[in-house]
Amino acid sequence: MADLDSIVAEIAHDMRGITERGHVADYIPPLACVDPGKFGIAVIDAGGGAHVAGDADEAFSIQSLSKVFGLTLALTLEGSALWSRVRQEPSGSAFNSIVQLESEHGIPRNPFINAGAIVISDILVSHLGRMGARQALLDFARAQSGAPEGLYIDENMAQQERETGFRNAALANYMRTFGNIRNPIDDTLDLYFHQCALTMSCRQLAGIGGYLMTGGVDLHTGRMVTSVPNTRTIMALMMMCGHYDGSGAFAIRVGLPGKSGVGGGILAIAPGLASVAVWSPGLNAQGNSLLGTLALEKLVQKTGWSVFNPFPLSVQKIT
Amino acid sequence: MADLDSIVAEIAHDMRGITERGHVADYIPPLACVDPGKFGIAVIDAGGGAHVAGDADEAFSIQSLSKVFGLTLALTLEGSALWSRVRQEPSGSAFNSIVQLESEHGIPRNPFINAGAIVISDILVSHLGRMGARQALLDFARAQSGAPEGLYIDENMAQQERETGFRNAALANYMRTFGNIRNPIDDTLDLYFHQCALTMSCRQLAGIGGYLMTGGVDLHTGRMVTSVPNTRTIMALMMMCGHYDGSGAFAIRVGLPGKSGVGGGILAIAPGLASVAVWSPGLNAQGNSLLGTLALEKLVQKTGWSVFNPFPLSVQKIT
Amino acid sequence: MADLDSIVAEIAHDMRGITERGHVADYIPPLACVDPGKFGIAVIDAGGGAHVAGDADEAFSIQSLSKVFGLTLALTLEGSALWSRVRQEPSGSAFNSIVQLESEHGIPRNPFINAGAIVISDILVSHLGRMGARQALLDFARAQSGAPEGLYIDENMAQQERETGFRNAALANYMRTFGNIRNPIDDTLDLYFHQCALTMSCRQLAGIGGYLMTGGVDLHTGRMVTSVPNTRTIMALMMMCGHYDGSGAFAIRVGLPGKSGVGGGILAIAPGLASVAVWSPGLNAQGNSLLGTLALEKLVQKTGWSVFNPFPLSVQKIT
Amino acid sequence: MADLDSIVAEIAHDMRGITERGHVADYIPPLACVDPGKFGIAVIDAGGGAHVAGDADEAFSIQSLSKVFGLTLALTLEGSALWSRVRQEPSGSAFNSIVQLESEHGIPRNPFINAGAIVISDILVSHLGRMGARQALLDFARAQSGAPEGLYIDENMAQQERETGFRNAALANYMRTFGNIRNPIDDTLDLYFHQCALTMSCRQLAGIGGYLMTGGVDLHTGRMVTSVPNTRTIMALMMMCGHYDGSGAFAIRVGLPGKSGVGGGILAIAPGLASVAVWSPGLNAQGNSLLGTLALEKLVQKTGWSVFNPFPLSVQKIT
Repeated sequence: MADLDSIVAEIAHDMRGITERGHVADYIPPLACVDPGKFGIAVIDAGGGAHVAGDADEAFSIQSLSKVFGLTLALTLEGSALWSRVRQEPSGSAFNSIVQLESEHGIPRNPFINAGAIVISDILVSHLGRMGARQALLDFARAQSGAPEGLYIDENMAQQERETGFRNAALANYMRTFGNIRNPIDDTLDLYFHQCALTMSCRQLAGIGGYLMTGGVDLHTGRMVTSVPNTRTIMALMMMCGHYDGSGAFAIRVGLPGKSGVGGGILAIAPGLASVAVWSPGLNAQGNSLLGTLALEKLVQKTGWSVFNPFPLSVQKIT
Repeated sequence: MADLDSIVAEIAHDMRGITERGHVADYIPPLACVDPGKFGIAVIDAGGGAHVAGDADEAFSIQSLSKVFGLTLALTLEGSALWSRVRQEPSGSAFNSIVQLESEHGIPRNPFINAGAIVISDILVSHLGRMGARQALLDFARAQSGAPEGLYIDENMAQQERETGFRNAALANYMRTFGNIRNPIDDTLDLYFHQCALTMSCRQLAGIGGYLMTGGVDLHTGRMVTSVPNTRTIMALMMMCGHYDGSGAFAIRVGLPGKSGVGGGILAIAPGLASVAVWSPGLNAQGNSLLGTLALEKLVQKTGWSVFNPFPLSVQKIT
Repeated sequence: MADLDSIVAEIAHDMRGITERGHVADYIPPLACVDPGKFGIAVIDAGGGAHVAGDADEAFSIQSLSKVFGLTLALTLEGSALWSRVRQEPSGSAFNSIVQLESEHGIPRNPFINAGAIVISDILVSHLGRMGARQALLDFARAQSGAPEGLYIDENMAQQERETGFRNAALANYMRTFGNIRNPIDDTLDLYFHQCALTMSCRQLAGIGGYLMTGGVDLHTGRMVTSVPNTRTIMALMMMCGHYDGSGAFAIRVGLPGKSGVGGGILAIAPGLASVAVWSPGLNAQGNSLLGTLALEKLVQKTGWSVFNPFPLSVQKIT
Repeated sequence: MADLDSIVAEIAHDMRGITERGHVADYIPPLACVDPGKFGIAVIDAGGGAHVAGDADEAFSIQSLSKVFGLTLALTLEGSALWSRVRQEPSGSAFNSIVQLESEHGIPRNPFINAGAIVISDILVSHLGRMGARQALLDFARAQSGAPEGLYIDENMAQQERETGFRNAALANYMRTFGNIRNPIDDTLDLYFHQCALTMSCRQLAGIGGYLMTGGVDLHTGRMVTSVPNTRTIMALMMMCGHYDGSGAFAIRVGLPGKSGVGGGILAIAPGLASVAVWSPGLNAQGNSLLGTLALEKLVQKTGWSVFNPFPLSVQKIT
């Protein structure tokens, strides 16, 4: 079996040859103008080693991927009390649906649909304030990335999200009627839109995912970022709800807890083994990166990393 | 760390002391009259060894657990063409909901909600006939159990299911309008009701689950029961949809692919490590065994078997 | 202002010139093979006089129009207790939707959607038995028509409805789970399918509607068929729910209580003034007769019969 | 049969004796603090004569009743093009539901649910500007009332509506994502909240309704306020959708086109015969005035004014 460097290089090479790349998100210009030809992959192994290929060092908008980091911070600050305001179940509907909120009284199904992530933002604002929470998220991402240079919040992106974000405003106002948004709506949405505008490379993103791979340990400092139960909770939710209404298909094809963003990024974790980031801007019908998903499927075929694989770890471990 | 025999004994002991046991399903007498005081657990390890405690050798009705075995047979007979008639996504609604069928044109969300399992039954009837499919399921269960004695289909249970099964008849008739039921409805439902009436012990159930733990290998004969990709698909769906609208909570608390039945049984698989069956008739609000879930949570705490755990396999492996 | 004979003749003439006629229902052959070129109109005035034009004496399948007569009989037999099993509100969804039944616990929104009409059939079977209820409906229609010859139940139509009526079987089974169907499902559906297969001409249909125009008085015998409050209730429901999800548009365009059938018939009542039947087999997007609706719109334009018109009756009354 | 003065006096007397009065709306203090003991009734006959009893001259907040007048102005300004942005059908769900907006792409079901009325406000703002539209509505109400003194927009009420109106903000933002709100959301909602804060007495409200009774003629000046077809459209929609999810029951019990408001007012029109306003603050389960509905039911029993009554006008006409 080939080493990881060869595997990622081979995958990047294979992806270059594929012309069907899905549709780039086009609801705001900064997303619409991204080159659909881009593809990057970065794997951080359990020893902290980086294996990258393609456009792995080019920055992109992580969008909904940021929901993983927002949830991590909120779990640390709020603890399990958080689960009274957002549930832990797949939604069975589109990422921005408002329908279930009505029958379920303003409690979103999980923290990875928009409504749930807005509640998480509201919790962060309650603890840290609007600007404090924004800074905390940026600090967290920079610290975990291991290479903070060029990792920033794209203010222009955040502004354009806000100007077109009527549906998110609808969700926030709607949950407010049930008392599930507790700060001024503009403050909560401001944090949400800035969180979504986090910009970084695959290499940085895979670096951040390290604390999930390790059960909460900061790969760079050896200190605990969050608890083992919290990482298990976050990865279980990534598995269940990380790809919107394509989460089941992702679990079957890839078999790893993962989270996608409309910018074309996906973060997937092989617990104890690897943190993987892929990026390709074209999306499939469910709003997940078309080539990113395919690349992860190939990676798992080559490494056997699916959590549903029965093979012993010694075979799975590749360095 | 204790050995598996001690662990299961300790869990069974702990469960005996718990008085809050949920509500036994009461829609038909054969289920309603089961003693809520029962609790059984059986673990089959990777070497085929059995570790049991409590009422592990008492037979119970596996009900929806049988959907796992029906799907296995249908995947073998029909292959991936099956996925044009049933999807692979969580439903975000109750196990017997008919609502999504309307907006999604008669294609059920997954094979583990009732509508999806009825489609699977219909596929089996198409391939094997009503009686042939029933016998094939029984043969499969007996062969995989490793100890077929006392494993049977409870005809009285099947009859009573049929007599009260108006909602399943509604689902079947409804899907028929979209052409997604292709045999006479009575034939398809007859198989469905008989499949649900499969009766066996925890020890037998855990034995059957062996082929999922091993990636398709029959623990007893060493032959392939189904392919590795099929076992990955089945376990991914168990993880996503195996506990109805409590699947996310189960993934967080237990972290293993599992499937529950209204009779109080749960089958959970630690890939490459163990096949686990628990049984306690009392159900929680989502229709899953209350003590069964708790017992699995404790088992994973003691063994570290969650697929979201980062610890190396050598630590996880307990014999 | 022209007399009624001239008005109906003029309308029939105008309709002949229209080529866009919608789509004939095609789910069963006896409906699919009806000539879309047909158009009939019959007006029975307050004195019992008939004014007809076009194919007013040709028999057609009245289908859902029969729900008006089923409700009339059920109200007489069961009284207002009926309203505990079916509500009085528009559904806001398609005529055969099953969605609301789930959230509203098996109680249909009104007696003119399929689910509601099946409950009405079930009530009639409880009172009169399967064959007794069928005969009572036929007797009622024949007696009120004033000219019973050629008015019959088309057994072939009923059989074909049954063979394709999986959605109605789904509705009935579904309501059975809530206890809202109380006879064997086959008996209740048998009555429902036979009721829908009532076959008659526009002249006969307008004749039957006479008791609604008069507030319950049989035009032919002077005896009460049902009470004034019952006729008000029935007409209010026709206004609210008589044209499925096109009821609002019908109220605006025509302004009379009316009920349509998938066979292309419409019965509309101008209280105290006229009973009107039109028939043209082509349907619009909401499943109501395209030309029938247009003809009624023109009739109301020429007569001022809308119940929302402010003009004094003396102007409205035309004979 | 008694004269109208006696009838309204008798009704007011009967209402005083009723202790079960429903629940006063309590979501904002100005509504919550209204005395539930109030009851007023005013009937304007076809000759313009007023017949009043009880608290007929006490001002109250007309709330959703104002949707009738907003629609009248919008129809005049925009014509039938309006119907591309709001439909004409009952919703089958609560007045403030957001569910149907998702499946129906941001087009509300009718102008009398909140979402639809907000679209109407948006149309008025497009034509007249925020302040211009507010003034036009006030001018219209004052002119039609025949007695403008004390008819005003309660600014405090409007402010409190705005401060608690998160659900309406959710609806507006949500429709904005489909392009069905075209002005700044704050401007559109500002008009909506001010319109709802129109405050007047039963006598004034019945006066305003005069143009609906007459087919568009201003009772006071004899000039056309709007066209006959527009009044027919408005009254058809009042009949279909004027009482939220209690519209069918109102059509059966009262049989007149009517519109209720959460302040406890109801306006009902007997075309060509009378404009009727009732007010009692306590609401039934569907959010309509409990005593107001009962009073209208009694009025129709005494006058025969239901549009579904077959009796000749000469009997109905009472002065």
